[in-house]
Amino acid sequence: MKELFKPKSIAVIGASREPGKVGYVVLKNIIESGYKGEVYPVNPRADKILGLNAYKSILEVSSDIDLAVIVVPAQAVLDVMEECGKKGVKYAVIISAGFKEIGGEGVEREKKLIEIAKKYGVRVVGPNCLGIMDLHTPLNATFTSTPGVKGGVAFVSQSGALLSAILDWAPRVGVGFSKIVSLGNKADLNEADFLAYLGEDLETKVILLYLESIDQGRRFVEVGSTVTRKKPIILLKGGVTEAGAKAALSHTGAMAGGVTALRAALKKAGIIQVSTVSELFDMAIAFNSQPIPMGSRIGIVTNAGGGGVIVSDLLISRGLKLAELSKHTIEYLRSTLPPVASVYNPVDVIGDARADRYKIAIEALLRDPNVNALLVILTPQVVTEPEETAKVIVELSRKYPSKPILAVFIGGERVEKAIRILVENNIPVYDMPERAVAAILGLTEYSEIREYLEKALERVEIFDVDKEGALAIIEEVKKQNRRVLLEHEAKEVVKYYGIPVAPTKLAVSEERAVEIARRVGYPVVVKIASPDIIHKSDIGGVFLGLKSDEEVIEAFRTIILNAKRYMPTAMIQGVTVQKMVPKGREVIIGASKDPIFGHILMFGLGGVYTELFKDVSFRLAPLSLREAREMITETKAYALLRGFRGEPPADINAIVNVLLRVSKLVTDIPQIVEMDINPLFVYEEGVGAIAVDVRIITE
Amino acid sequence: MKELFKPKSIAVIGASREPGKVGYVVLKNIIESGYKGEVYPVNPRADKILGLNAYKSILEVSSDIDLAVIVVPAQAVLDVMEECGKKGVKYAVIISAGFKEIGGEGVEREKKLIEIAKKYGVRVVGPNCLGIMDLHTPLNATFTSTPGVKGGVAFVSQSGALLSAILDWAPRVGVGFSKIVSLGNKADLNEADFLAYLGEDLETKVILLYLESIDQGRRFVEVGSTVTRKKPIILLKGGVTEAGAKAALSHTGAMAGGVTALRAALKKAGIIQVSTVSELFDMAIAFNSQPIPMGSRIGIVTNAGGGGVIVSDLLISRGLKLAELSKHTIEYLRSTLPPVASVYNPVDVIGDARADRYKIAIEALLRDPNVNALLVILTPQVVTEPEETAKVIVELSRKYPSKPILAVFIGGERVEKAIRILVENNIPVYDMPERAVAAILGLTEYSEIREYLEKALERVEIFDVDKEGALAIIEEVKKQNRRVLLEHEAKEVVKYYGIPVAPTKLAVSEERAVEIARRVGYPVVVKIASPDIIHKSDIGGVFLGLKSDEEVIEAFRTIILNAKRYMPTAMIQGVTVQKMVPKGREVIIGASKDPIFGHILMFGLGGVYTELFKDVSFRLAPLSLREAREMITETKAYALLRGFRGEPPADINAIVNVLLRVSKLVTDIPQIVEMDINPLFVYEEGVGAIAVDVRIITE
Repeated sequence: MKELFKPKSIAVIGASREPGKVGYVVLKNIIESGYKGEVYPVNPRADKILGLNAYKSILEVSSDIDLAVIVVPAQAVLDVMEECGKKGVKYAVIISAGFKEIGGEGVEREKKLIEIAKKYGVRVVGPNCLGIMDLHTPLNATFTSTPGVKGGVAFVSQSGALLSAILDWAPRVGVGFSKIVSLGNKADLNEADFLAYLGEDLETKVILLYLESIDQGRRFVEVGSTVTRKKPIILLKGGVTEAGAKAALSHTGAMAGGVTALRAALKKAGIIQVSTVSELFDMAIAFNSQPIPMGSRIGIVTNAGGGGVIVSDLLISRGLKLAELSKHTIEYLRSTLPPVASVYNPVDVIGDARADRYKIAIEALLRDPNVNALLVILTPQVVTEPEETAKVIVELSRKYPSKPILAVFIGGERVEKAIRILVENNIPVYDMPERAVAAILGLTEYSEIREYLEKALERVEIFDVDKEGALAIIEEVKKQNRRVLLEHEAKEVVKYYGIPVAPTKLAVSEERAVEIARRVGYPVVVKIASPDIIHKSDIGGVFLGLKSDEEVIEAFRTIILNAKRYMPTAMIQGVTVQKMVPKGREVIIGASKDPIFGHILMFGLGGVYTELFKDVSFRLAPLSLREAREMITETKAYALLRGFRGEPPADINAIVNVLLRVSKLVTDIPQIVEMDINPLFVYEEGVGAIAVDVRIITE
Repeated sequence: MKELFKPKSIAVIGASREPGKVGYVVLKNIIESGYKGEVYPVNPRADKILGLNAYKSILEVSSDIDLAVIVVPAQAVLDVMEECGKKGVKYAVIISAGFKEIGGEGVEREKKLIEIAKKYGVRVVGPNCLGIMDLHTPLNATFTSTPGVKGGVAFVSQSGALLSAILDWAPRVGVGFSKIVSLGNKADLNEADFLAYLGEDLETKVILLYLESIDQGRRFVEVGSTVTRKKPIILLKGGVTEAGAKAALSHTGAMAGGVTALRAALKKAGIIQVSTVSELFDMAIAFNSQPIPMGSRIGIVTNAGGGGVIVSDLLISRGLKLAELSKHTIEYLRSTLPPVASVYNPVDVIGDARADRYKIAIEALLRDPNVNALLVILTPQVVTEPEETAKVIVELSRKYPSKPILAVFIGGERVEKAIRILVENNIPVYDMPERAVAAILGLTEYSEIREYLEKALERVEIFDVDKEGALAIIEEVKKQNRRVLLEHEAKEVVKYYGIPVAPTKLAVSEERAVEIARRVGYPVVVKIASPDIIHKSDIGGVFLGLKSDEEVIEAFRTIILNAKRYMPTAMIQGVTVQKMVPKGREVIIGASKDPIFGHILMFGLGGVYTELFKDVSFRLAPLSLREAREMITETKAYALLRGFRGEPPADINAIVNVLLRVSKLVTDIPQIVEMDINPLFVYEEGVGAIAVDVRIITE
């Protein structure tokens, strides 16, 4: 994307002489940003704009054009794009609105736009966007009125209005940008494209995203996980509650829908999700200048006891730890700080601390190997020296460059100058404790993500599966114009994937039912087999613990009768006869296909408690061994499975194995849109697990 | 407290001529705050300070003194207080440090201070505090360097440093104060005293508290619930995680300790708890000027789609609702707004909206009865009119004074003037959506609290209890130097309070055991009876389902043998024989005594799930009928009890009844520090519930 962010030449098509018009503002911004390449205003009705020669058409420009910024009315965009194509333009930023977002003719227009762009190989940003900026080039090809400050933060936003408001607001919190991208309608280039580029961009230290939709879910995750190995990505996703409410398919489907899939995807990609604009930027400020901490043990130096208390509460309630200072540090602080000071973490240098006392405490904590990151709190009191203390922080931050330092200077006028010193010297500074805590949370979360991504690579290859066998069943079902597999069919499918199932066969007659029952061995369970009957018990379609031929025959007759009585229109295939297996601990394993991110796997406690406590975990397929294990350990059910109150531990490896096989199944056969094993009976360690009921739905 | 906040005369004892000294700053602040009463500096070594005549002692002043502000060194405070007492001073604000907070001699000094104060009837603020302010008097009797702005927010803080930092910071967010109190060591006056006063204070619209400790828990709750009927109280409690970690008694004790008791207390008092300083003030700004909404359905007007999306996500994820606009409003908006605008909530007036279009949308939503509160979002875009839009908001807020309006103006320079217009006209304005959402959350929470407090008054009198009977057992146990009641004793106690129990008797011999078994009826349960053995099953001390005399005799022998073998030092009283009752749905009801707030009641699902999912609810005793019902309905277990997946509903009224009786029991007999009924078997509706095991521990 070099020709987009660092073009040698730019044409502004639709440049205007009238101040206030977008075509004027864009051209003015490009010139005023200090852009050093060639700029060609294109406007058939003007000779000169802002002192530059204007052209009737881009085709009239004799030199090559890397980037075209298009601000003509929507109706004219297609013609302009044709010309750009002919001219050999590499990138087009289409600011003009009037495309997909207005519906109807706009949708058509956008389709044609993509066709033209593809024909000529022009890559497109937008349409219906604010433009792009590269503060290092420097280039401001947007129509915002705020230039932005140079720095290491890249911001990619799907909301132009939000982007321009934030550009106006950003100087207050001292954030500097590398590149800014307004995505607009994402007709061509989308978030994944920009992530891939920004991941390699040396000027970008951290990437911020505001997205309302994700276009290529799987690619987004793949690119994301590559980038987050190198630098953090922080996402504010708009529309998370709406989406969550909409997803309401079947039981497990409802729990896995939308938001859950997103969370599983972000977990896999190592992307940090936040829920507010402040968090996005509070984290960005820290990532922009500070190193990644080696752990989550935080040290605190404060001149206000209350500040230390509030920060401790926030850190701990958000899962971080207070560093336990080394004996050496405690002794040193005790011998140097006044007797009333607190020498334990939080270190309270007390109200009359001047800069020299802050220096003693800060340096002691930076030296302490038990401290991974440092938070310095200052409240202006009678003898406090805010500026001198700020200088001490700057000095020590340079001396100990491997540990992050964040400052919280609470106050107004009395800390203003000190804050300026910190900002100018790249120390993140916040006006409130919670903002610094959000930032530290981001730093430590990223530190864990990097560690995680390095280890998570190991894959387990499951070889002993019969894909052809499973596929044959699914294709047969499709031929019969069904989407829902019958129980014995679903069980066959998972059996082909090496998942132990309670032996189950379809019987179309009483004789056949008895024959099967004898073969699998009594006692047996007999159930109605019909693609139209989902809740089998409700219509009297299930008989448990049958011990003789007579009982099986009786059950067969009653079930068929019940089915005909209560569901007269249902297509009845017969009954399934299943060997009754010993009861184990019940768990549920499911998979569902998210329209954006593909297959999501679910694990949870079986029975009513799954529904009641939502004690379930999710991961994107395919699973690594580690992810399968995590799915189990991160649920509360794990405590039960591990052996609760003297119970023997359950065979957790057997669950891991089933999870991996289900993961392989849905990955191999993507036409499965939903499946669950409910319950999976899990026995004692070494004894294994068995799928008692299996449900599979295809596309 | 009129003589504290609006004194006719003030003596500053320890006033100093040296700028920078606390005794100088305090006097200067009093003078510069515009205080109109008499001010008498007291300093034995000065004639005049800051132009006022100085006195050698307060006794030298001829007029009466309402308020003494004391800034002399700790060693001199007691003598000064004697003089204040003799002089008839009403209130003393003791800024001097060197008391309880330094331990040792400081503790002694504070004790003596309280004695002197009591002797003369002088009420004391502090010691070791920053002082007090009344912005309406006006009077600034603190040593902060920031005067503060006048308004309706009272702030009572246990951290002086935090208080002064916040005073410096407050102008940024546009908050105005009525009174400011630095509590210091709370030797005499504490948070409950100030709450009581501020509740009646007409100049105070909302009370903010920062507390690290609560001194009189029950009084705090009582005063709190009286005040919150009139105006909101918002608390930032420091040390919530520390406290939570420390509380680790028995199982239910651990769950009910510290933080849980606090939460139950705040629920009873109707106090809103926040976890950050920003939330405290973001709410305060809204309460200071806006009416309380009649519900939680929020309307949104925005010129940025992204802003509307983010706010919607935040509102919904925090339990608020988006208002569903009336048909009339939608039609009206459709006919007046441009076709691309969104006429549903959030109403998107789109990027090119000027003030007139905002006016149309805002007024339509204010008129709509489905909208309880309105949030107006503005982002500066090319044609946006921030100032004009601010004026529109001010105008409409006056026209529709019964609905709260909050503004979110995101940006920097371009919205600065508009923000000033809003602040000057008492419209709460925030720079980020999440801040406004926090404020709206406060408004709606308070609206619910007020409604709740009005209804919660109904008490249920439980008459049919035998307090004397229960007390006799507890006193007998005390005589035996035991704290833990034996099972049959505990069951007797609850039986005296009308709680159905499985009949249980103590048997000291085999013969007696058989006799009891025959009387209560087979089958029976036999358990070891020993004050030293808590986990009876672990030592083979429990036999279930015994059906004959022989089985009971055999069980008696084995249990005594097992007990002697595994717990040779345990005092064995015999065995308890209990009628085996039919299994019901298991729930747990408990009570524990918090050192600050007294008895807390607990309700939850019985069995392993209580521990695993922490699905429990708490309330402060004594319970009203409504609270007892809420304790059940707010747990997830309620879904199970109400009848899950076709099960018949359980007898919820029976649980309510047991809760009310346990509440009465611990209220009548406060020496009970811990008790639980675990399990309580609950049967089908109308069939009742029965306590199967009961544990009681006394002081």
